Amino acid sequence: MRRVEEKPVARKVADHEVWLSGALTEVDLRYTSAGTAVLLLTLAGEVDQEGFPRPYYLQVKLLKERAERWADRLKRGTAVLARGVLTQYRSEGKTYTGILVRELRLLDPGKVAYSEPDRKGNRREARALNRFLGTGLLVSQPEVRAVKDGHVARARVLFQSGGEEGAVFITLEAWDGAALEVSDLSKGTPIFLEGRLKNDSWTDREGNRRFELRVEASWVKPLARPIREEAQEEENLPPDDLPPDDLPF
Amino acid sequence: MRRVEEKPVARKVADHEVWLSGALTEVDLRYTSAGTAVLLLTLAGEVDQEGFPRPYYLQVKLLKERAERWADRLKRGTAVLARGVLTQYRSEGKTYTGILVRELRLLDPGKVAYSEPDRKGNRREARALNRFLGTGLLVSQPEVRAVKDGHVARARVLFQSGGEEGAVFITLEAWDGAALEVSDLSKGTPIFLEGRLKNDSWTDREGNRRFELRVEASWVKPLARPIREEAQEEENLPPDDLPPDDLPF
Repeated sequence: MRRVEEKPVARKVADHEVWLSGALTEVDLRYTSAGTAVLLLTLAGEVDQEGFPRPYYLQVKLLKERAERWADRLKRGTAVLARGVLTQYRSEGKTYTGILVRELRLLDPGKVAYSEPDRKGNRREARALNRFLGTGLLVSQPEVRAVKDGHVARARVLFQSGGEEGAVFITLEAWDGAALEVSDLSKGTPIFLEGRLKNDSWTDREGNRRFELRVEASWVKPLARPIREEAQEEENLPPDDLPPDDLPF
Repeated sequence: MRRVEEKPVARKVADHEVWLSGALTEVDLRYTSAGTAVLLLTLAGEVDQEGFPRPYYLQVKLLKERAERWADRLKRGTAVLARGVLTQYRSEGKTYTGILVRELRLLDPGKVAYSEPDRKGNRREARALNRFLGTGLLVSQPEVRAVKDGHVARARVLFQSGGEEGAVFITLEAWDGAALEVSDLSKGTPIFLEGRLKNDSWTDREGNRRFELRVEASWVKPLARPIREEAQEEENLPPDDLPPDDLPF
């Protein structure tokens, strides 16, 4: 029997995980110019935060065979659970951050709780799952601002997706108690981060509507700097942060 | 250049993840009779649950090069973060369930909060991380019992470790609201489970002290039964649950 030759892939496990559930508001199968299938799904859910439902609408993508296999089985309203990683690429000076699904499951349709319809008539999954966990590197000095109901800290964090796409820079946002913890950290600190993903939007100076996928931290744990072969991995990282484009601050 | 021949390994990503931090109370490097290095670490931590610290002492293991590499760098009191998976093997009629570490990091020693010393003089990490997430299969009918401060539901869940060791059967324990949710599920239901790991102990009928690693669910989400190639994977699973040995009930 002939051996299938596999090209060596420097694939390691991603240093972070995304677990996300929601009801689909959009199911969109596309093909790239090279013929790659891309299935874009928007998951609508809400998580409880101090007794209040916090809604989210997050887009995830599936690629290739997985995209085609799932496209027929999903429709608006279907509730799914996705497990995946962050991905990022740059095009024409802009950075696009997304969620790449590595495993998709259907929730038991008889057991899903839905919200009331939103303005577009879509129902979100109630008590949904929106969990991000990872060990990354703070690549900017945290900035803290006073806002009307407390404090918010923001910083850029570098994660490794484990795939060919490599490095992912993402904005960490922390409020109140978590903001104080983050403000205490300095650029270059490795951290454990747990939080939820959110899609922030704002209007930039040119009046364009902008969107950015961010992690709102529920907590952050500073780690010691890695040594030996872990350090070597770090040396192979890109030397500097991506420009923050035009973040709100 | 000669190609290194690799034997094909049916390795897929594990269907669950363990994220655990704690201060070490034990660092024990051993070698199996075949010469494999095994580093056993006991992590002591406490998580807040409704305002009360809930302590845990959980043993994890590292194997081979990773075991030897870390043995010199760790001592009692060192606080670490471990990411890994469950493992399980049977020996002489008993089932041993453990946590296999795939990534270990040191916490920043200057930022770790410790508890007061316990009876043995060990300090636990305060506000520690003890997170289990996974998609598994309920392989027993949940049993619910009234206990003095509410209800507890227990069931056996099957996870796949993704390594050569394969299937892991573990007891899911759910209290109060989560107990009601679990009691509503039937054997054979695929579930998403989030919770924390705990080491339960009891005395069996022969008077021996017994220990079992369990997951205490914070929530459970029933999934639809998988179809197509996912179903094929399921067909390859062992036909039945492991005997529950002598669980408390």
